[in-house]
Amino acid sequence: MSELAFIQDILRRQSTVARNAYARRTSLHVSTKVDANDLLTEADLAIQANIVDAIQTAFPDDHIVAEEDGLTTLPTDTTSRCWFIDPIDGTQNFVRGLFPAWGISIAFANEGHAQCGGVALPERDLTLLAQRQQGATANEVPISVSTIAKLANARTEIDFGHRTSRDDLLAHCTTLIQESGQLRCHCAAVVGLCSVATGDADAFIHAGLTPWDHAAAVLIAEEAGATATQFDGSAVPLFAQAPSLVITNGLIHGEILAHIGRSPDK
Amino acid sequence: MSELAFIQDILRRQSTVARNAYARRTSLHVSTKVDANDLLTEADLAIQANIVDAIQTAFPDDHIVAEEDGLTTLPTDTTSRCWFIDPIDGTQNFVRGLFPAWGISIAFANEGHAQCGGVALPERDLTLLAQRQQGATANEVPISVSTIAKLANARTEIDFGHRTSRDDLLAHCTTLIQESGQLRCHCAAVVGLCSVATGDADAFIHAGLTPWDHAAAVLIAEEAGATATQFDGSAVPLFAQAPSLVITNGLIHGEILAHIGRSPDK
Repeated sequence: MSELAFIQDILRRQSTVARNAYARRTSLHVSTKVDANDLLTEADLAIQANIVDAIQTAFPDDHIVAEEDGLTTLPTDTTSRCWFIDPIDGTQNFVRGLFPAWGISIAFANEGHAQCGGVALPERDLTLLAQRQQGATANEVPISVSTIAKLANARTEIDFGHRTSRDDLLAHCTTLIQESGQLRCHCAAVVGLCSVATGDADAFIHAGLTPWDHAAAVLIAEEAGATATQFDGSAVPLFAQAPSLVITNGLIHGEILAHIGRSPDK
Repeated sequence: MSELAFIQDILRRQSTVARNAYARRTSLHVSTKVDANDLLTEADLAIQANIVDAIQTAFPDDHIVAEEDGLTTLPTDTTSRCWFIDPIDGTQNFVRGLFPAWGISIAFANEGHAQCGGVALPERDLTLLAQRQQGATANEVPISVSTIAKLANARTEIDFGHRTSRDDLLAHCTTLIQESGQLRCHCAAVVGLCSVATGDADAFIHAGLTPWDHAAAVLIAEEAGATATQFDGSAVPLFAQAPSLVITNGLIHGEILAHIGRSPDK
């Protein structure tokens, strides 16, 4: 089984687990991690354990990087086979959300690059998949980014992230907030990134995103035609703990980087 | 039939219309209003026409204020019977959204106050209703606001609205953005307001909201225990074109007003 088929199969099975957990979310055990805003449910842990088990059975020598349970360490050899897992991105929305804006993310990397990845949005019955240089799909239908060419007409998604990154984000993004056509924040990076991939948003901005958040969804967006860089315009490193991220339909990328570069500390 | 029962009945019927329109949204006719960000679909017009027809049949002497089709004028006698309709709040999300974060809003006012109101979120199969001084429900189950007592632990929803109000919003809300536990923006006021009512968010902020956006959902939130004021702490007028709005679970209201009052122009 190819890694992409493996991802598709496991997302299908874990989507069912996640949907069942979501249906009984008010009775789930919820704890906090770094602070009161950083939630962890028993569903995050169960889904991650299921995905880790499946990878270790199918690909026992591969490195695994995942959000929970002490698996956050990046490999020393970044050219070797490595998996990135976020069992539930958007746990706050899972626990406290009128709309289920959360997803499951799995990416496979080799030779230093994400080779394939998938994001499931179980409550939308939607799975997005991408294989490097072979395009991206949503429920097996090809997807592509939007064609909006001016920031003033664009939907920009700014992820405000944790309070500790807020000053940095505002320093870079104040004029962008003033000039974007509309502004959204789903509070779930995979949802914001997949919105760019499907053409539902035109840009997504984050001051520092962990690799399990972006590894699959950035590949999906890029394969749908998106342009991704850090705030300074350089490439987004896959093996880094919290690179900044600007991802757009390509047409408004320069305009957004100009706003970000206009910040007082640049 | 009471006005509340009338609202419940019409929301049920128009939810079906809206769901059917949403299912074929890629083939709907979409035009723009004030600018390229201000979308109007044939579904907005059809649903509004259905609601207006029903009100005119049942209550032929009542004034109607609605978002579309030249019905935006407020009545001169604000103590008389008046209805506020938003056929689809969150039209951008209806047209361009991975998640269907849009809703239908109807409120009935008399003697200067909203007396009852309802918001349907058709793709969530959820209808929120409230009768003045008799509490609020979601699918007939009583709802109440959250109990989070510190802004640092709170989910604050800031609606960035139109570009023209962005400078004003940032002037008031920069320290609030820095200090809130999490920040969201659904880009649909009724969804943000209903999130406060159900306890899924702890606060919602808007620099200037039209009455058809807030008449029903503010009543629902207040009846669920929320506190609502303008930025300066005064009451939110029902018959005004664009009052500012701070609505919270009550516990963090003072903390948020202090941040808003800290703005340079106050």
